[in-house]
Amino acid sequence: MGAIRFALIGVGKIARDQHLPAIAGNPDFDLVAAVSHHDPELDVPWFATLDALMASGIAVDAVALCTPPQVRHALAVQALHHGLHVFLEKPPGATLAEVETLRAIADARGRTLFASWHSRYAAGVDLAKAWLAERQIRAVRIVWREDVREWHPGQEWIWQAGGLGVFDPGINALSIATHILPQPFHATQAVLYVPANRDAPIAADVAFTDVSGTQMSMNMDWRETGAPTWDITVETDDGTLRLSVAIGHARLVLPHALHEGPDREYAALYARFARLIADGISDVDVAPLRHVADAFLLGQRRLVEPFVE
Amino acid sequence: MGAIRFALIGVGKIARDQHLPAIAGNPDFDLVAAVSHHDPELDVPWFATLDALMASGIAVDAVALCTPPQVRHALAVQALHHGLHVFLEKPPGATLAEVETLRAIADARGRTLFASWHSRYAAGVDLAKAWLAERQIRAVRIVWREDVREWHPGQEWIWQAGGLGVFDPGINALSIATHILPQPFHATQAVLYVPANRDAPIAADVAFTDVSGTQMSMNMDWRETGAPTWDITVETDDGTLRLSVAIGHARLVLPHALHEGPDREYAALYARFARLIADGISDVDVAPLRHVADAFLLGQRRLVEPFVE
Repeated sequence: MGAIRFALIGVGKIARDQHLPAIAGNPDFDLVAAVSHHDPELDVPWFATLDALMASGIAVDAVALCTPPQVRHALAVQALHHGLHVFLEKPPGATLAEVETLRAIADARGRTLFASWHSRYAAGVDLAKAWLAERQIRAVRIVWREDVREWHPGQEWIWQAGGLGVFDPGINALSIATHILPQPFHATQAVLYVPANRDAPIAADVAFTDVSGTQMSMNMDWRETGAPTWDITVETDDGTLRLSVAIGHARLVLPHALHEGPDREYAALYARFARLIADGISDVDVAPLRHVADAFLLGQRRLVEPFVE
Repeated sequence: MGAIRFALIGVGKIARDQHLPAIAGNPDFDLVAAVSHHDPELDVPWFATLDALMASGIAVDAVALCTPPQVRHALAVQALHHGLHVFLEKPPGATLAEVETLRAIADARGRTLFASWHSRYAAGVDLAKAWLAERQIRAVRIVWREDVREWHPGQEWIWQAGGLGVFDPGINALSIATHILPQPFHATQAVLYVPANRDAPIAADVAFTDVSGTQMSMNMDWRETGAPTWDITVETDDGTLRLSVAIGHARLVLPHALHEGPDREYAALYARFARLIADGISDVDVAPLRHVADAFLLGQRRLVEPFVE
């Protein structure tokens, strides 16, 4: 089989920082075009719309959607109807129902739909999962704090309804937790702190439990002004695990071991996407987005001071 | 097979109005006990907790949970671990994740879990589904308006976080719409009107679309002071369908036909529960609750005047 002829849709920060280098480094993919509102200044033809690309005669097998979640669904439907395999950035949609619809279309068309969760491929995650599988978990604590002005400059869409607010980074933690914890959790209480001039929360606290009564707490805050903290701490009957992720790097601390490694998240995601296409299957796990929807469903809202960037 | 030895958990308004008459009218069920904080004054033994009932030596095969959704999950887990079949009132949980957990436990234990949606058994619903299956749908309009003081007196839990507010009745409309419409819809916009002194919305407008671009609008309002309106209107290429439900009665108007009938909702639910138990299977459709979670996820909140009962 030849390389997968690939087009990138949406050429923003995540596309440039992560997708383009990962695609360039993977011989299974051949970047043939881009779709963007403005000229992305890449070495391949670009088009303002997916329809224009499809009308161009350029052969395309697969696309990645790197647009904001509010517009991702219509593009994914179009792409699947064009017979393309689709890589969705996280979160896979603005609603859970639209993701179910995409899954049904991909299944009906026999195309691969990949709802990607890049943080699951951070260094140490698989080791953490294996270590926890053999231990009794007593408590879980997630702390996900970063300065929104530093990490999301100018991203107006994250503040709009459907943009998730502080859950946009927080869903990364949930994607790891749902992957490494052996028992499913569900939210029991949530407080969402919403700036008076915005629709989406700038901070949130969520309490979860599993069926055994094990508690998980999650604190997210975009008002952090110091260094970011992206930590998952798990107390077990055999000591404490701490997974700390950072940009380009992650660090797993176990009672008698330390594992550190560089970021291979997007390289791993594209390797997985190629494998899914070769196997003719999809991978659509909505669990992280479901936890976010649950937190909104049962969350108390507290108005906090307006956020001005 | 003998009758299913049955216990009712939570003996509030819905239990007295609907469950007890339906159980009394179905020879497949034999009511043997009740669980309630206070003496429910029924002709069967009552217990303050499920554990007390199970310790009593009374043999029980199945239970219905008629408690508020915020406490339903822990009881359902207990009941499944006692080897009981479980009938869940709507909504099946306060979160989507907890329902997935229940489904997994029921499957692992080989017990029946039934997430009931009583409005799907209103008169005319099956006929509406059959009629729509053969027509092109152009637009759908749901209007669900009732006086909260009349229909939910003293129900403090519906105003608390996790209590759904006006979506508590609105989810009935969604349970019908997801059943009768041939294509899946997903929410694209939502506005939730929340009293300044409450956590849950008193009114809401939600816009949905399907993949063909067909629009569905949904208007819910608990501030209605006149007669309630519980209507689903579907415009098709062959005229308009209108399904109007009422307490104890429903009315389906088609272009050249009218179908009216008395309420058999809970009788039909218990007939279905008995059939599921006999067949050894579960029926857990989360689609209505998923739409509500999606509306909360992408909904804009607007504060409205405090609600005092």
